[in-house]
Amino acid sequence: MKFQINQKILLEHLNYVIKGVSTKNLIPILNCIKFELNKDGLYLISTDNEIAIKTFIEKKDIDKIDTLGEIVISGKYIYEIVRKLDNTIINFEELDNNQILITTSFSSFKLNCNDIKDYPNLDLEFIKNPIIINQKTFKTAVNQTIFATSSQESRPVLTGINLKIKDNKFQFTATDSYRLARKIIEIDKSIKENIDIIVPSKNLIEVVRLLNNEDENIEIHIFNNKIIFKFNTIIIMSRLISGNYPETDKLITKDFELRIKINLNELYNAIDRASLLTNEDEKNIINFESNKNDVRVHSNIPEIGNVEEKLIVNKNNDKDIKISFSSKFMMDALKIFDTDEVELKFNGEIKPIIICDPNNDDLIQLIVPIRTY
Amino acid sequence: MKFQINQKILLEHLNYVIKGVSTKNLIPILNCIKFELNKDGLYLISTDNEIAIKTFIEKKDIDKIDTLGEIVISGKYIYEIVRKLDNTIINFEELDNNQILITTSFSSFKLNCNDIKDYPNLDLEFIKNPIIINQKTFKTAVNQTIFATSSQESRPVLTGINLKIKDNKFQFTATDSYRLARKIIEIDKSIKENIDIIVPSKNLIEVVRLLNNEDENIEIHIFNNKIIFKFNTIIIMSRLISGNYPETDKLITKDFELRIKINLNELYNAIDRASLLTNEDEKNIINFESNKNDVRVHSNIPEIGNVEEKLIVNKNNDKDIKISFSSKFMMDALKIFDTDEVELKFNGEIKPIIICDPNNDDLIQLIVPIRTY
Repeated sequence: MKFQINQKILLEHLNYVIKGVSTKNLIPILNCIKFELNKDGLYLISTDNEIAIKTFIEKKDIDKIDTLGEIVISGKYIYEIVRKLDNTIINFEELDNNQILITTSFSSFKLNCNDIKDYPNLDLEFIKNPIIINQKTFKTAVNQTIFATSSQESRPVLTGINLKIKDNKFQFTATDSYRLARKIIEIDKSIKENIDIIVPSKNLIEVVRLLNNEDENIEIHIFNNKIIFKFNTIIIMSRLISGNYPETDKLITKDFELRIKINLNELYNAIDRASLLTNEDEKNIINFESNKNDVRVHSNIPEIGNVEEKLIVNKNNDKDIKISFSSKFMMDALKIFDTDEVELKFNGEIKPIIICDPNNDDLIQLIVPIRTY
Repeated sequence: MKFQINQKILLEHLNYVIKGVSTKNLIPILNCIKFELNKDGLYLISTDNEIAIKTFIEKKDIDKIDTLGEIVISGKYIYEIVRKLDNTIINFEELDNNQILITTSFSSFKLNCNDIKDYPNLDLEFIKNPIIINQKTFKTAVNQTIFATSSQESRPVLTGINLKIKDNKFQFTATDSYRLARKIIEIDKSIKENIDIIVPSKNLIEVVRLLNNEDENIEIHIFNNKIIFKFNTIIIMSRLISGNYPETDKLITKDFELRIKINLNELYNAIDRASLLTNEDEKNIINFESNKNDVRVHSNIPEIGNVEEKLIVNKNNDKDIKISFSSKFMMDALKIFDTDEVELKFNGEIKPIIICDPNNDDLIQLIVPIRTY
């Protein structure tokens, strides 16, 4: 393998694959990036067995190709070296002793390569009719739900986002059992088979991080045990989480005893301030009490003091509610909306609170209250 | 105590004193900020026994003063509360039960206050003839030396900056015994007594953080056991570190076997890249070898690979040198210069390397080499 490439172009693509490089030292070959230079161009590949990332630099973006070939280099070192070589042309040349020589006018690096035969064979196949959606739409749906996934490995299914497709409805659900986030987007064509899978949230974070072309689409290829995302020059494969995702539809009821419309910013800021006098150890409990067209949000830490916030609200009937919940979970949920107003829907002080945009039911946030009254 | 104040003004001054609030819970009163409202205006005071910070808000910047008085409130809570109240007018009112009521149109906080009698009495006195220097000059001198202080408490004197004044020379020295940084600035008038003190570096960081008015001066008042800085609306008192600072003058020789002038950016970048193939556990050793008008910087990690960087340099004679040093210490030293070129001065491979601006000897960096040849 021998070629010349512009540092900026190579660095851009190393930035794509670096997050697929394992940071654990257990299987050294997974700490590496595979360079595959063939007649079409240069492929860079990384995998840590949880995720695989592949990107492609077209022949026309490579300054000079002398000899084709494949090598496997330490991901951390090649990334840092290329990052620190100034905006210049970099020469790569494979040496006889399984080393790669990397040079510019003043710098010369020799790195030991790993054995190409040890690199895992990745099955980056595609299906004929993938799901195709706009990158921005996909990114938004992930961002509006992913924060509600669990970080506890004790229930692995809750550490992923549940993706369900039925007809032309594509549903994203995340829950840690104390709160739930759900977003539904429409897809163009209806899918014959129903889809119901769980994708690890940390892999979806990497997919979303690399979606940088809002006008373009992303292709989603779903298999029994893996999901493949294809966009721009990039292919990302993620394993799926096996197991049954909890049945969450029954939690999201249609009828409510009380609905309250509140200015989003005023509610967020009031809860943010009230949360100053809550304890993280006690789940940041705050109290929410409606009285006619006022809502009083209050909390206290006995040894420090107390706080009370007042809000003017708009109710759908004369009923009132006294309910308590985690201020952190409520703020996480409210952050997701970009409307002027949100609607809070209640069925008494022990049933889940639903938060949504009053004009649009595609996005739903749910919080389980904490019993204090 | 009862008054009204604009949130922005109060927050600005809380930002000054918050770093003087203790973050340890050992002595609760040191976690507090003292508010002193008298006929001239409002003083805010904090101390953690290592540093004390006092700031003043003039009467004209306070919207309304009803009753004068003094209170002591939890620093963390009052800071967060004021920070999260929107840009608005805040009312403060002392209640009978040693509580403070803090209100805006929609928010109402009651905080328990501490007993004013428990707050330490700070002796923020001044001397008649303080040292007066430009804020920017002082800030630069601290920043050019402070990184070389030691973080190890085993030799407390090395955790501070040594300030020496003789006639009209004000000398800042920091060393961790492996490298040294020294800056000399001129002061307008000569001081009769020689000064030789050690100021804790973490307190100097706070002083420098608050120096935001480059055209204005800072007053420095030095006592036997403390130093007081006065600038803008702020007074900061720091304890001194007791003990004798090592005699460092003899390290900085005047005669050198070899002097090499090198482009600063090229040298920095070459060392930065060479340091990629060094081990932090082994002090990031790199090798520096001159040969005629070339310098070769090289290093290696046997299992990973090696690197070699070439630089064109300008020597004062025909001698050559092979020397090894910590790439981290060299980069720390080089970062401090803002010249095009630096001069490296050598007396063989075991004597300290001096780095300076070839046109100006006010700033000197020194690195002890590591013996490998």
